[in-house]
Amino acid sequence: MFDARTMKLIAALLVSPALLVLVLSLPVSAKTITYTPQTVYFTYCYSHPPAARIASGDTVITNTRDASNDAFQPTMKTSAEGHLDLARVNPQTGPFYVEGAEPGDTLKVHLDKVAVNRDWAWGGALPYFGALAPEYKTMMVTPPVQDQLFIWRLDRSRNVAVLNMPKSKIGKVEVPIRGFFGTIGTAPYGKECISSLVPSTHGANMDFNEVVEGVTMYFPVFERGALFMIGDGHAAQGDGEIMGAAIETSFDVQFTVEVIKGKKINWPRLENQQYIMSIGSTRPLIDALRLACSDMINWLVTDYGYDKIDAYQLLGQTAVIKIANVVDPQYSVACALDKKYLPR
Amino acid sequence: MFDARTMKLIAALLVSPALLVLVLSLPVSAKTITYTPQTVYFTYCYSHPPAARIASGDTVITNTRDASNDAFQPTMKTSAEGHLDLARVNPQTGPFYVEGAEPGDTLKVHLDKVAVNRDWAWGGALPYFGALAPEYKTMMVTPPVQDQLFIWRLDRSRNVAVLNMPKSKIGKVEVPIRGFFGTIGTAPYGKECISSLVPSTHGANMDFNEVVEGVTMYFPVFERGALFMIGDGHAAQGDGEIMGAAIETSFDVQFTVEVIKGKKINWPRLENQQYIMSIGSTRPLIDALRLACSDMINWLVTDYGYDKIDAYQLLGQTAVIKIANVVDPQYSVACALDKKYLPR
Amino acid sequence: MFDARTMKLIAALLVSPALLVLVLSLPVSAKTITYTPQTVYFTYCYSHPPAARIASGDTVITNTRDASNDAFQPTMKTSAEGHLDLARVNPQTGPFYVEGAEPGDTLKVHLDKVAVNRDWAWGGALPYFGALAPEYKTMMVTPPVQDQLFIWRLDRSRNVAVLNMPKSKIGKVEVPIRGFFGTIGTAPYGKECISSLVPSTHGANMDFNEVVEGVTMYFPVFERGALFMIGDGHAAQGDGEIMGAAIETSFDVQFTVEVIKGKKINWPRLENQQYIMSIGSTRPLIDALRLACSDMINWLVTDYGYDKIDAYQLLGQTAVIKIANVVDPQYSVACALDKKYLPR
Amino acid sequence: MFDARTMKLIAALLVSPALLVLVLSLPVSAKTITYTPQTVYFTYCYSHPPAARIASGDTVITNTRDASNDAFQPTMKTSAEGHLDLARVNPQTGPFYVEGAEPGDTLKVHLDKVAVNRDWAWGGALPYFGALAPEYKTMMVTPPVQDQLFIWRLDRSRNVAVLNMPKSKIGKVEVPIRGFFGTIGTAPYGKECISSLVPSTHGANMDFNEVVEGVTMYFPVFERGALFMIGDGHAAQGDGEIMGAAIETSFDVQFTVEVIKGKKINWPRLENQQYIMSIGSTRPLIDALRLACSDMINWLVTDYGYDKIDAYQLLGQTAVIKIANVVDPQYSVACALDKKYLPR
Repeated sequence: MFDARTMKLIAALLVSPALLVLVLSLPVSAKTITYTPQTVYFTYCYSHPPAARIASGDTVITNTRDASNDAFQPTMKTSAEGHLDLARVNPQTGPFYVEGAEPGDTLKVHLDKVAVNRDWAWGGALPYFGALAPEYKTMMVTPPVQDQLFIWRLDRSRNVAVLNMPKSKIGKVEVPIRGFFGTIGTAPYGKECISSLVPSTHGANMDFNEVVEGVTMYFPVFERGALFMIGDGHAAQGDGEIMGAAIETSFDVQFTVEVIKGKKINWPRLENQQYIMSIGSTRPLIDALRLACSDMINWLVTDYGYDKIDAYQLLGQTAVIKIANVVDPQYSVACALDKKYLPR
Repeated sequence: MFDARTMKLIAALLVSPALLVLVLSLPVSAKTITYTPQTVYFTYCYSHPPAARIASGDTVITNTRDASNDAFQPTMKTSAEGHLDLARVNPQTGPFYVEGAEPGDTLKVHLDKVAVNRDWAWGGALPYFGALAPEYKTMMVTPPVQDQLFIWRLDRSRNVAVLNMPKSKIGKVEVPIRGFFGTIGTAPYGKECISSLVPSTHGANMDFNEVVEGVTMYFPVFERGALFMIGDGHAAQGDGEIMGAAIETSFDVQFTVEVIKGKKINWPRLENQQYIMSIGSTRPLIDALRLACSDMINWLVTDYGYDKIDAYQLLGQTAVIKIANVVDPQYSVACALDKKYLPR
Repeated sequence: MFDARTMKLIAALLVSPALLVLVLSLPVSAKTITYTPQTVYFTYCYSHPPAARIASGDTVITNTRDASNDAFQPTMKTSAEGHLDLARVNPQTGPFYVEGAEPGDTLKVHLDKVAVNRDWAWGGALPYFGALAPEYKTMMVTPPVQDQLFIWRLDRSRNVAVLNMPKSKIGKVEVPIRGFFGTIGTAPYGKECISSLVPSTHGANMDFNEVVEGVTMYFPVFERGALFMIGDGHAAQGDGEIMGAAIETSFDVQFTVEVIKGKKINWPRLENQQYIMSIGSTRPLIDALRLACSDMINWLVTDYGYDKIDAYQLLGQTAVIKIANVVDPQYSVACALDKKYLPR
Repeated sequence: MFDARTMKLIAALLVSPALLVLVLSLPVSAKTITYTPQTVYFTYCYSHPPAARIASGDTVITNTRDASNDAFQPTMKTSAEGHLDLARVNPQTGPFYVEGAEPGDTLKVHLDKVAVNRDWAWGGALPYFGALAPEYKTMMVTPPVQDQLFIWRLDRSRNVAVLNMPKSKIGKVEVPIRGFFGTIGTAPYGKECISSLVPSTHGANMDFNEVVEGVTMYFPVFERGALFMIGDGHAAQGDGEIMGAAIETSFDVQFTVEVIKGKKINWPRLENQQYIMSIGSTRPLIDALRLACSDMINWLVTDYGYDKIDAYQLLGQTAVIKIANVVDPQYSVACALDKKYLPR
């Protein structure tokens, strides 16, 4: 009778009539596109030919490769065995050209489904990566961390990632799978083409472990069509991705886009059941925090009628600050506010 | 029949027999001292005469002034009205000399009770304070934030702090009271006397919103007697204390100390029901994070039999990183690990 | 008989026979190209069509616009009057495709002539720029610096830049003209297209006040033809360009290129009469310093037979560290060593 | 007839009659005190008993130990052999109580003579020190630099420090001796007692290689008598002291003090023939730079009649920024301005 997506909407409406407004505001012709990636990209860039042209309201079903671009295999002990080409890591699926999206608009993306689609993942101590070792930007005369791959088994029936640790007393750890996308965003500002490893105002490699199934994200639109891309699935990751890699694997994903015309934002934002969040990316870390919290204050002032200093005081007493990444070329920090502080 | 503390212990034993070990390990003579501060101190220092001499296992009942040293009153609109003496802010109660504590030991402190004891608190935009404005260390040619006090009403019956915001659409916000101590620690290393505003290896002004009732903290002992002090009660505070002040008020407190002989630690640590945490303090922020996570790795290696790189991998995939403060002379970051990853 | 360039070479050879090796190693056909810019670019990018194709050994005579792309005029009092398009500032002349340059080579560029070519320049307090005010990355809730243009008169006969300061007791200041290029470099690594405002491994907007007439620079080649560009002439500038703009004007320039085949370098380098220098760019500032000094150590080890720790010790006792910029999206630091410490 | 100091004054007056004003302003009783240190101190602190009480205008002749407190000997190959007690390094000579100096005044100190007084010095790769290796604040999981002492021979007849480098092609390096004091300052603000390793508003361990013979320094007075101390002589040092130690040795020193009543400054300042300089100390490095340049702007506004934004513009185009240290608990940066920009 109804397809899954329609059923889901009906169910949602039963519990939240307010959603009706949203539903009615979508184009009647909202459709679902299934896209199997033929090509992947290693930069976010205005000049990539679109993988598909979609409309506001459309849903896309697709998948993503792991961040090594399949260079690593579960038999490997070190990253050196993978012969990584650093100009070709972190492959992205897309870009999706969203009709009607123009510079100055906002692209809203709902992550309908985020699911690991294979039975293993890799983590690792990669030379010149990681927050607790000399890296490509924190360069030192002492040696980097010693190269070592960690192969995690993904037990999807129990929803855990399992790693044997024969050298440690505990012997084995099991980490709950909480799949999310490390990299997600739109084409950058100013005709820049930026490595998919770099997070910035257009989103991209924020490596934020809250970009999970069910959340809604908002991205600035800098180019016609927005040119949305996604990749770098993580089965799980601690705050900050401090070792430089998460539990890295391939994913199936379903998302639904919407263009918010005439709504200009400066940084990516995220909304889940409890929080709204602004995500700033730069180095040093304190400045990423400042960007995130300043954007949240702007958000509260612009959309929710807060006086600026009142908003600052509110954040001072209630902000939840999350460290997304401290290992990428720019660090990412999220400033979150409980939605109970938003006026009706 | 039994005093409150004994009753509490009996109740705790009923739900957790494991506590029995702890109880039996305490000296038989463990006593409760009630101390009413006559003097307060504005530095953490080896040379302050002890407020009281207590034994390992003893419990102290005392109280703390607010961070302005009572300079602010609820009728004030600006901090200037309070004529703060910056050499005399953040008054500390103590120091408590713990018999038997010697350099190289660890002082364990359980926060039995943390309770606001008055009906109002202050927050504020203080010139040259706060993470989102030019401050005393991030000095600029542009003006600091405009001086403004925010007076919060503490509704202890409903356990909320209430602030009227007539200039904002929401009109009023209510923040749950979650009282904690911004400043807590021992005398510093190397015969330094350090302002109570500065957090470091000895603890002090970490402004960490997890230092709540019920947690256990661990501090390095650098001087005979440890010279434990406490102050700077906050009715609530967002992560990072980004505006430079929390919801500042006076507190009643009860805590129980224990000396762990021969156990040397480098940074303050905290344990609650779910997590163990290491807390590092320095600027810049990334280095505070590195100190906290490096200390956690050392902890896992030393006390829990983890291989060092395994511990790093585990943290990379599971660490919870909390921003304690980004406004004090040193920033503080906590690196937390779920206790389910500790081997039995 | 001989043209000016040949005469100059002969003169140089008379004082330094060693130059003969260099001269003989240049292609016999070394020629001088005069290029009048038709188009300018606002990114460093592999895909820009070359302005000209030149050979190793060739000399180019061309000119550059000022960083505002001629948006500012000497009658203006504020930057707002210029209606800057931030996606179209810092225009670059080029790119020059150097035949034979391939990824993994080094491009050597000698700045034969650097000369201001008009009689005025602008400096300014630009909102959200400058190291001593809230900026686009160090975002705050307090206001940015107040918009103000400073129009300098360039007195080329006396070689000074003159600014009237009626509000200051001194009334007027004269700063010696020491023209240099703020932006100079090759196409970036990894098919990135990067705003000309950003310095990185390919050089670009380092804003280093030692890039003056007479110096030799070395750049990594990441793309075929190297794609050298130049722009952002500064009549003078203090260390760090701390106000966010130098004494900005248009320039005439003559430079000579040479491809060093098979010589791979990681960061731009500079050589003048007294020093060799490595230039690192990133944020935070300490990491730019680390990159520069680490690269210098690598240089000493690779090209001059230093043991690594000996090189570190030598730098520790003799390094001259220069702050190039602390206002661009990445900061730049140069680590310089006196050439007397290089073995013959 | 006349002692050396008087002769020097007379000679100076012959070339610069303006000095007469200075001379006449000194107390008639200005005397020279020779002090042989019995005790040294490892903190800057209000509570140290004075080594001597001197008057404004007096001259002191004394000496200083090396920073290891004589723990290292020229036969040692590693710092471990020295068994350093980290709570007892960087010994200071003093404190000198200057009669009449009170909080809010400035202490002016002229370095009349700075001379190495022995024939060897040490440098080193000390574990957990140095800007290019993991250190005590930039803590990592990878190892620190490998422990190695470098013993320099001080050839005072030729005024060079000589280091053999058998592992390097150059074989030997000679660095000109340019002796200066790494640590110099007054008692800290707010009754803090701060390790002599830490630079701050009171000066102390700035490790600034311009603190040489002939310069004049200015320090804030925070305690009665100022309590001036000095130590940590360096035969030479590169900018930033990037390896964590300079060419460390013992010194003879002669200095003359003067109290400037009612002149309040916030940071140490230095004046030599060509420049005035402000020195800021904190981490991160950019904030030390901001403190130094902000203080210079304040100086220009307060003492030289500059409009604030004019002063900022002037610094933007002419500032010389010097990296004093990037290895101590706080980094130090000097912002220098050529005295030709000061109005008569």
